[in-house]
Amino acid sequence: MTKPSIPRGTRDFSPVVMAKRKYILEAIEKVYRTYGFMPLETPAMENLSTLTGKYGDEGDQLVFRILNSGDFLKEVPVEKKDEATGNYKSLTPHISEKGLRYDLTVPLARYVVMNQNEVDFPFKRYQIQPVWRADRPQKGRYREFWQCDADVLGTDSLLCEADFIQIYHAVFKAIGLKDYEIRINHRKLLEAVVEKANASAHFKTITVIIDKTDKIGIDGVAKELAQLGLGGEQVNIILSLLAKTPFSMDLINQLSDKLKGSKLAEKAIHDLTELFQLTGKGNQKVFFDGSLARGLDYYTGCIFEVVPTSVKMGSISGGGRYDDLTGVFGLKGISGIGISFGIDRIYDVLEELQAFPKDNAIFTDVLFCPMDDKAIAYSIPLANALRGENIRTEIYPQASKLKKQLDYANTKNIRWAAIVGENEMQNNSVMLKHLTSGKQELVDKDKISIFID
Amino acid sequence: MTKPSIPRGTRDFSPVVMAKRKYILEAIEKVYRTYGFMPLETPAMENLSTLTGKYGDEGDQLVFRILNSGDFLKEVPVEKKDEATGNYKSLTPHISEKGLRYDLTVPLARYVVMNQNEVDFPFKRYQIQPVWRADRPQKGRYREFWQCDADVLGTDSLLCEADFIQIYHAVFKAIGLKDYEIRINHRKLLEAVVEKANASAHFKTITVIIDKTDKIGIDGVAKELAQLGLGGEQVNIILSLLAKTPFSMDLINQLSDKLKGSKLAEKAIHDLTELFQLTGKGNQKVFFDGSLARGLDYYTGCIFEVVPTSVKMGSISGGGRYDDLTGVFGLKGISGIGISFGIDRIYDVLEELQAFPKDNAIFTDVLFCPMDDKAIAYSIPLANALRGENIRTEIYPQASKLKKQLDYANTKNIRWAAIVGENEMQNNSVMLKHLTSGKQELVDKDKISIFID
Repeated sequence: MTKPSIPRGTRDFSPVVMAKRKYILEAIEKVYRTYGFMPLETPAMENLSTLTGKYGDEGDQLVFRILNSGDFLKEVPVEKKDEATGNYKSLTPHISEKGLRYDLTVPLARYVVMNQNEVDFPFKRYQIQPVWRADRPQKGRYREFWQCDADVLGTDSLLCEADFIQIYHAVFKAIGLKDYEIRINHRKLLEAVVEKANASAHFKTITVIIDKTDKIGIDGVAKELAQLGLGGEQVNIILSLLAKTPFSMDLINQLSDKLKGSKLAEKAIHDLTELFQLTGKGNQKVFFDGSLARGLDYYTGCIFEVVPTSVKMGSISGGGRYDDLTGVFGLKGISGIGISFGIDRIYDVLEELQAFPKDNAIFTDVLFCPMDDKAIAYSIPLANALRGENIRTEIYPQASKLKKQLDYANTKNIRWAAIVGENEMQNNSVMLKHLTSGKQELVDKDKISIFID
Repeated sequence: MTKPSIPRGTRDFSPVVMAKRKYILEAIEKVYRTYGFMPLETPAMENLSTLTGKYGDEGDQLVFRILNSGDFLKEVPVEKKDEATGNYKSLTPHISEKGLRYDLTVPLARYVVMNQNEVDFPFKRYQIQPVWRADRPQKGRYREFWQCDADVLGTDSLLCEADFIQIYHAVFKAIGLKDYEIRINHRKLLEAVVEKANASAHFKTITVIIDKTDKIGIDGVAKELAQLGLGGEQVNIILSLLAKTPFSMDLINQLSDKLKGSKLAEKAIHDLTELFQLTGKGNQKVFFDGSLARGLDYYTGCIFEVVPTSVKMGSISGGGRYDDLTGVFGLKGISGIGISFGIDRIYDVLEELQAFPKDNAIFTDVLFCPMDDKAIAYSIPLANALRGENIRTEIYPQASKLKKQLDYANTKNIRWAAIVGENEMQNNSVMLKHLTSGKQELVDKDKISIFID
């Protein structure tokens, strides 16, 4: 028999890992809820017609496709069957109609369009579900990973942007992450700069290049822009935007001066000014970062990224405003904005900072240790009473030797043992032992919960 | 543009539906946790070598297969490529290596075998995740549905069976389901009866037939058993077991008399006796049901099913003991027991009984209604203060007409509106309006939370 395994790029989450993941996810969910976001879940499988053409050519290649069930060759036209011996691209659409969810944004757009008569705008939803990508697995990159999105659809109010900045602060406070930067930029500012540099034809490529500033530095960006065929003056105009500075009215005024006369810049400056006014002062963790571009094509307004500063790690959240997410499914004119937390990276950051609470991976508070079979029956109602008070309680399922039972308790970091032998039963009590201090005491069987901290 | 849709047999869960699903799932999870069960999650995709051969031939057909990524035809041997034009079964293993999780039990066994050096026994885990089956969709049967399992591995103690009966009571109490029956049987009792009827060669088929007693009645069962070739005496022996009676020592003694001399029955009687002693009296909702067989081959001991009695519906939970779940992956001798809740059916039952809490689908407690743009900025710190006290709060994102804002509040069943206009701002206050009663009051801006119930 071959040893069982799991597919490359996927993971089992053991109880200890689950406890840490839940710590993060529950914090995010709780904050989302206090802002009135509502839960939504969509199917793991979507029709390929929903998924393809939304993530670029590369994205299309990374969608996991489900083989049609039953005789999937039945529907292949005869001429395609001949091709089937060689051309997989030509065969695929005939044998596969469904794919696995690639992100949570396209399913949201699809949902809103399908349910436009029931959805009330502004529609605030959060969604925490796995997505799948047939990427080459490597350290920190998985084929199954979780996204934790929140989006507001149906309003272009800058209040949404301000809310998301507050949400970042609230989430990171809740999970004890102190050192981070919220970086913001505006897609129309990028467009204005590229327009000013007379290079709008290359806009997409340029955003990809400047998005790499963190990795390749200003010099690297200059080099790649030159390779693209831009002249020295053009390159300089673009580089002039790339600095990262605290988000302030001074900065916004500088940007305004620099891009005077540009319609695109005017809109961006208006948005940033209003966002600054709503966000208020004292936001030392908010920075304007001209090099922030966000790869996704659908962003059209403010964009965000959050980076931890005391740990070397990429962004742990990102997002932005889009003007026409649902347009691709036939519903025009719905402006929206959303953010997404990268739970895997946040996990790694908290692990590196040893910021997870110590008692997070304790699953049982009290272990009843029965010394004989009668003691098992004696323990059942006592354990149930503790459970009724929300105290997590197990009864060791066999009257094994006490050492074996206490070993089990120690392995699971259980703090309390309620030992039950002949003497305890005669006295309507249990011997309650605190396992870290070793202290023990005979306790009335109806008063155990008083002692459990 | 074609209207977007989702694959047949899958569902979007809207916020209102999600709130109800979470109500059920959180109740189950909370009870599991009070019994010391630990969370586990496994990947949606498993290797086909893990999945196939575990669910019978029919099950194998119902596994959703993932098309290998990239040029999936590359690995197909030349002679198979010719076959590819006609024979899909022969092609499948060459173009697909992974499938979607079909249940949570086989992944659990796979996990325990892969991690046997880290897992401490008895291993108590719960798992709440979707599973996928390429079944023909119909009312109440989906291609994507959630299972909520709890299992204990590594002990044959009847305490586990007793715990699961308590867990049933605790879960149904938590979700307000009063009328239900827990039905139990023992697989070895079934084996003993079939042995006594001299029909062991047909054991599997006979379990399938008697499992249908609820649907086709005793007469139907008798007919099908006769069609199988059993004589009248044989049929009568089997029918004698089918009655459903309260679980009691009297009943256990009757069974013992009826099957005297059978080794298989002896073990079953021993288990039922011990379970009765651990469960105690006063369990009016527990019944012995001789017709309960549970289709799955791997059960070897006590088996359970729960049926709601005030609503016409199939079983809402089932489970049982298995002696060798991990054996198929090479780890022998691990006895275990598990149950699974059917969340979709429980949802339908609560819906029919109108048992969901009324305020379950309210997502926001307070809506700030700004009368001008300044009022938005004024509202932000007040809203954040409420959120800090765990009061779910939204600010309407535009200074729209009050009627429009209150309409939004009404649609979302929001109970409180904090109206902010010129006058309120001058008085450092908000006009707090209770939307169901219509009463309103000018309230100090720092004291809003006192009024929110």
